[in-house]
Amino acid sequence: MKKIINDPEQVVRDMIDGMVMAHPKKLRNIPDTTVIVRADSPVQGKVALVSGGGSGHEPSHAGYVGKGMLDGAVAGEVFTSPTPDQVLEAIKAANSGQGVLLIIKNYTGDIMNFEMAAELAEAEGIRVEKVVVNDDVAVENSTYTTGRRGIAGTVFVHKITGAAAEKGLSLDEVKEVALKVIANVRSMGMALTPATIPAAGKPGFEIGENEMEIGMGIHGEPGTQRTTIETANKIAETLVERILEDMKLVVGEKVAVMINGLGATPLMELYILNKKVNEILQSNQIDVHNTFVGEYMTSLEMAGVSVTLLKLDDQLIELLEAGADTVAWKK
Amino acid sequence: MKKIINDPEQVVRDMIDGMVMAHPKKLRNIPDTTVIVRADSPVQGKVALVSGGGSGHEPSHAGYVGKGMLDGAVAGEVFTSPTPDQVLEAIKAANSGQGVLLIIKNYTGDIMNFEMAAELAEAEGIRVEKVVVNDDVAVENSTYTTGRRGIAGTVFVHKITGAAAEKGLSLDEVKEVALKVIANVRSMGMALTPATIPAAGKPGFEIGENEMEIGMGIHGEPGTQRTTIETANKIAETLVERILEDMKLVVGEKVAVMINGLGATPLMELYILNKKVNEILQSNQIDVHNTFVGEYMTSLEMAGVSVTLLKLDDQLIELLEAGADTVAWKK
Repeated sequence: MKKIINDPEQVVRDMIDGMVMAHPKKLRNIPDTTVIVRADSPVQGKVALVSGGGSGHEPSHAGYVGKGMLDGAVAGEVFTSPTPDQVLEAIKAANSGQGVLLIIKNYTGDIMNFEMAAELAEAEGIRVEKVVVNDDVAVENSTYTTGRRGIAGTVFVHKITGAAAEKGLSLDEVKEVALKVIANVRSMGMALTPATIPAAGKPGFEIGENEMEIGMGIHGEPGTQRTTIETANKIAETLVERILEDMKLVVGEKVAVMINGLGATPLMELYILNKKVNEILQSNQIDVHNTFVGEYMTSLEMAGVSVTLLKLDDQLIELLEAGADTVAWKK
Repeated sequence: MKKIINDPEQVVRDMIDGMVMAHPKKLRNIPDTTVIVRADSPVQGKVALVSGGGSGHEPSHAGYVGKGMLDGAVAGEVFTSPTPDQVLEAIKAANSGQGVLLIIKNYTGDIMNFEMAAELAEAEGIRVEKVVVNDDVAVENSTYTTGRRGIAGTVFVHKITGAAAEKGLSLDEVKEVALKVIANVRSMGMALTPATIPAAGKPGFEIGENEMEIGMGIHGEPGTQRTTIETANKIAETLVERILEDMKLVVGEKVAVMINGLGATPLMELYILNKKVNEILQSNQIDVHNTFVGEYMTSLEMAGVSVTLLKLDDQLIELLEAGADTVAWKK
């Protein structure tokens, strides 16, 4: 196993410490937890947003904690849902009295644990609402989900919902914005190589030397198709086509595009893929309003990429383009 | 070879197209060249900064083109110096009449080609100055250099010198700031896995399954030591110790730290390394004023990391923290 770590059982602890040491003005760790909140939490007069999930998807989610995005992020063990008590700590630390919205990726464990935390928080008198992101069009049900998985599209939910909260919208209004993003965001990914969970010490699966997998999840869940490696252009066609089947965009519609590296894929390749994605959308007379290329929701050292499309209207454009000051998203 | 590309001979062209398509408001490609300039180039009344080098180090250098940093970046073929005619195009496109500073990483080919371009530009009446970055303390001479190599510390030169130019300093003054950064920045890296040049189709070298290489260059040039994989803490000690031998920081001195991923290393591991780097500096009573963790100067899909320390004074702090609006560095 080729990793720059100390104790495989301590990677999440060490990472959180190293992250807060790097960004002490922006981030604060709640002692004895894996919760990272805005250094100025709780922010008065504002609905609080809390997200999280298993570790290994960095910069998700703590990289999006800060002004204009999340108030708190909870990190589980690698590829493992955070426990309800940790989520509860995040809710309590983030809440300023205006209520808390939980942004949950659609995985069975995450939903169960975030819901339990919500109940515990409500028992303490904190108003909590929840939304579930399910942007991955690859498979309808999967290893860890009923219904579609939540993947990189979640970052658009963080950004846009965060801007809505920062504007002072109420909990119900912020939730409505989140549901609108979720209804309009779709993703699909592919992988060339697997990821290795540090405590496991070996890859979670194998992909042949000349193979790639289409529609694979961010934890290595099986996809829809294993083929020989295709060109970037063919990969772009496959991913975008599948998304467009589901989205049914009409001529002239505006979208935001995210080309998300899964961990080991060079930025060079992400831009090469973006060229074709952009060309396909242009040829369909879809207006590419914003493009984001980089690592937003990774899967440790997996080589691969996901493409996300978000259908935009004036409200979503305004909130997407609003200021944000987090470690991984600055505007 | 597991890459998301089309024609291996066209990766630089495709990447540049995909990058400009992603960021049309920020970046512009000079037609029929591999030069990317600020969309609003030439920026009147300001010294222009031009950098570049072989491709494969993304986001270096085009990711740093924009307000507060570079005016233009020239991309050579992968791990190959850009040709003088391409550098000349960048100089001409960036120059607004206040002169141009070339920021060159210390590689024999880069120096030769940038110098030739400077002479051609001067023959056309453009005033050009040059600085050479040589931050890598690993080896004194190497495969492609006389003297130390230029690596991730170059990004600090872009940022700080860019802020100086944006403030309206003269060419001589901007050059003086660049030389001050170069005199105060030191880096050292290590790698776990090699990179594969697309046109070559196979890794440039091999590292055993349980081995790592210390002091390796960003093109896979040999380092100082090949050992079995050490812990993150030991790696941090080795890299920082070697840098501190060269820098001779005194108690209370302020530094900026860059923990730079070489391409395939998960952000999780960079933060784990940062924890120990931060602790070492603290225990030496060095004041860590700013920390940057991410992929700044990569080597395709190489797994590994470099650590950069920049000794700060009030002027450098002000310029480091000044506003910047580029694809890869926003402040």
